[in-house]
Amino acid sequence: MENIKCLSDLKTSADTKILLFVMDGLGGLPGPKGLTELEAAHTPNMDVLAYNGVSGLMDTVRRGITPGSGPGHLGLFGYNPHTFFIGRGALEAAGIGFDLQKIDVAMRFNFCSIDPDGNITDRRAGRISTELNEKLVEKMRAVSIPGIEIHVETVKEHRGIAIFRKEGLKGNLHDTDPQKTGVAPLKPETTDDGESQEMADIAERWISQIYEILKNESPANGILTRGWCNYPEIPTYQELYGLNPACIALYPMYRGLSKFAGIKIYTEGIKDFATKIAVLKDVWNDHDYFFFHYKHTDSAGEDSDFDRKVACIEEVDRAMPDILSLKPDVFAITGDHSTPAVYGAHSWHPVPILMSGKLIRPDAVKTFGETAAVSGGLGRFEARFLINELLAASEKITKFGA
Amino acid sequence: MENIKCLSDLKTSADTKILLFVMDGLGGLPGPKGLTELEAAHTPNMDVLAYNGVSGLMDTVRRGITPGSGPGHLGLFGYNPHTFFIGRGALEAAGIGFDLQKIDVAMRFNFCSIDPDGNITDRRAGRISTELNEKLVEKMRAVSIPGIEIHVETVKEHRGIAIFRKEGLKGNLHDTDPQKTGVAPLKPETTDDGESQEMADIAERWISQIYEILKNESPANGILTRGWCNYPEIPTYQELYGLNPACIALYPMYRGLSKFAGIKIYTEGIKDFATKIAVLKDVWNDHDYFFFHYKHTDSAGEDSDFDRKVACIEEVDRAMPDILSLKPDVFAITGDHSTPAVYGAHSWHPVPILMSGKLIRPDAVKTFGETAAVSGGLGRFEARFLINELLAASEKITKFGA
Repeated sequence: MENIKCLSDLKTSADTKILLFVMDGLGGLPGPKGLTELEAAHTPNMDVLAYNGVSGLMDTVRRGITPGSGPGHLGLFGYNPHTFFIGRGALEAAGIGFDLQKIDVAMRFNFCSIDPDGNITDRRAGRISTELNEKLVEKMRAVSIPGIEIHVETVKEHRGIAIFRKEGLKGNLHDTDPQKTGVAPLKPETTDDGESQEMADIAERWISQIYEILKNESPANGILTRGWCNYPEIPTYQELYGLNPACIALYPMYRGLSKFAGIKIYTEGIKDFATKIAVLKDVWNDHDYFFFHYKHTDSAGEDSDFDRKVACIEEVDRAMPDILSLKPDVFAITGDHSTPAVYGAHSWHPVPILMSGKLIRPDAVKTFGETAAVSGGLGRFEARFLINELLAASEKITKFGA
Repeated sequence: MENIKCLSDLKTSADTKILLFVMDGLGGLPGPKGLTELEAAHTPNMDVLAYNGVSGLMDTVRRGITPGSGPGHLGLFGYNPHTFFIGRGALEAAGIGFDLQKIDVAMRFNFCSIDPDGNITDRRAGRISTELNEKLVEKMRAVSIPGIEIHVETVKEHRGIAIFRKEGLKGNLHDTDPQKTGVAPLKPETTDDGESQEMADIAERWISQIYEILKNESPANGILTRGWCNYPEIPTYQELYGLNPACIALYPMYRGLSKFAGIKIYTEGIKDFATKIAVLKDVWNDHDYFFFHYKHTDSAGEDSDFDRKVACIEEVDRAMPDILSLKPDVFAITGDHSTPAVYGAHSWHPVPILMSGKLIRPDAVKTFGETAAVSGGLGRFEARFLINELLAASEKITKFGA
């Protein structure tokens, strides 16, 4: 039985609160002194939590797999990232904060360079600037097709998204990106048994008009589309667990994923870490599950800045007493994946997690860190089972069988 | 491939014996001195076993799930508790020691209170006493339907079971309990494509006669049925593993589950722990797998009696040399779930396990306890895979592939 179905069958109400604190890209690798960022950081508050709580290591997608931010968070939210696939179109839309509707078909595109014979010479049009992208997108918005609402948005550099809004539209189309140069872009054909034919026809008309509009541009005189999809149909936290969840996050990607999962998003008034904590406190009485997202650990890791990542972790540690003054019944602190500063990118290494709360069985771990977490009572597990631990320790699920 | 199918394909005979010793509800949480019941107990014999053997932690159903006794034991027996669901009717029948037959349909019922309009006012009839239940059940036994053998039995307070015995009867019926008051009980309709129509017709006739008999009773003037099911079809230990297994248990639930799994049950002459060990010794030469069940740890946990649970564990420890004088080739000692005394109920915390035997690879664990077991060589795993370790270490399964 699928894990979320099992949990859903057992859901029960309890007057308890769960706080999941995610430091993006928390996991690391040893730096100059042989310690990871988390181990090198001075974290007396998190160490006390580890001493009193239980630790472990999580593979957010599965062992050895480097998670993108989307699948990483899906796992943290309890969804099997392989079962609940969110199409790239929808993910990119979430990523830029586009307010995707249930009837939308979303797609991402790259600007590309096309030669006079119609063949692709550069699949990314020399990675044009975001500024040029914005100018081209403005031109593309002139293309209209009767009976359908179309949105075109810049993502970054050569990347953009397009949204097609019309009741009943199905978006199961092949990429038009052939993944190689020297050939023409593909046609947007359906991947299903014809249910998406209307979208395919619209896509073909729209793309041909886009090419007409871009034909005199250089180097970006074409687009290649991919990741066509409808609004992701994933069961919400309310449906699955009866939870009334809140998301405190600033970055669009995490807000978008939260939206798909039915998690109410708070951003109003968030300017920095301190105001984010203030928002958490403001809405504390209105919800029973809180996803709090801290981004800067990941950014520092991506920038290969070991010391800055350490400083970020220490900033979070200093805020712990203030955050814990809310007295969550279950508190978990972890990451959505590793971003080791010495690697400068997302990695496959499992992320450390610690949980505390009055119904937690403590282990012998005394500090919060990757090496210590190996000996933790939670063991090493896939992140989609974290929700089991959170719901159990907050008594929001009941006994299985008599 | 389902795990038991994999094992079944590999089964081979070996002149070895497996002893699985289950202390019901063994797992705990820290008590007044920061140690769990098992850690607080003086267990020199089990500590030597841990020193020479291998330890670990088991989730008997899955991570975070609090197991009922039924699913907990199914897991220990190697069955996936989600795949091999045993209907509540059969489980309750097993629970009171009713000798369910292969052709039986079983159902549990609650006595309830019905108002003059036929609507439910109390789904449990004010939780009537077991004595009143027994008197009402005696009256219910007067109801007969030609061509079918019917048994009605008291379980406890407002709960009872009914068994319908007739060749070919299929028991896939909806509950008649609507799970709320102010409405009439539901009709016993089939959940399948009509294969259970005969049972539905019989149920409707039988229930209407029961209501006739109870109509002047108060407060229990009706019944609500649930958990209709046939005899559980689970493959037996003989079929799966070629084992000739024995169950030494006193409580009906565990005997019932053993029966479903084809495990021969011994209860004759068991009065206490000492006589239970005597029976184990008596039948030692007749079997190659022994499930020995010790109940009192769970009862003490349920009673929130930390010290009594400690004393129970120490009682078991003192018996170890006597039990081990039988020289099982593989010996495992564990629980079917946790029942922490500080929690006073079944819980989701994983249960410690230790295994010993000449082909066990030892780990560095030196005592038997929850915290120590975290570092054990068995790791943290789902109980349904315990049978793999037991069969392997007793050489009752052979190599997979060339």
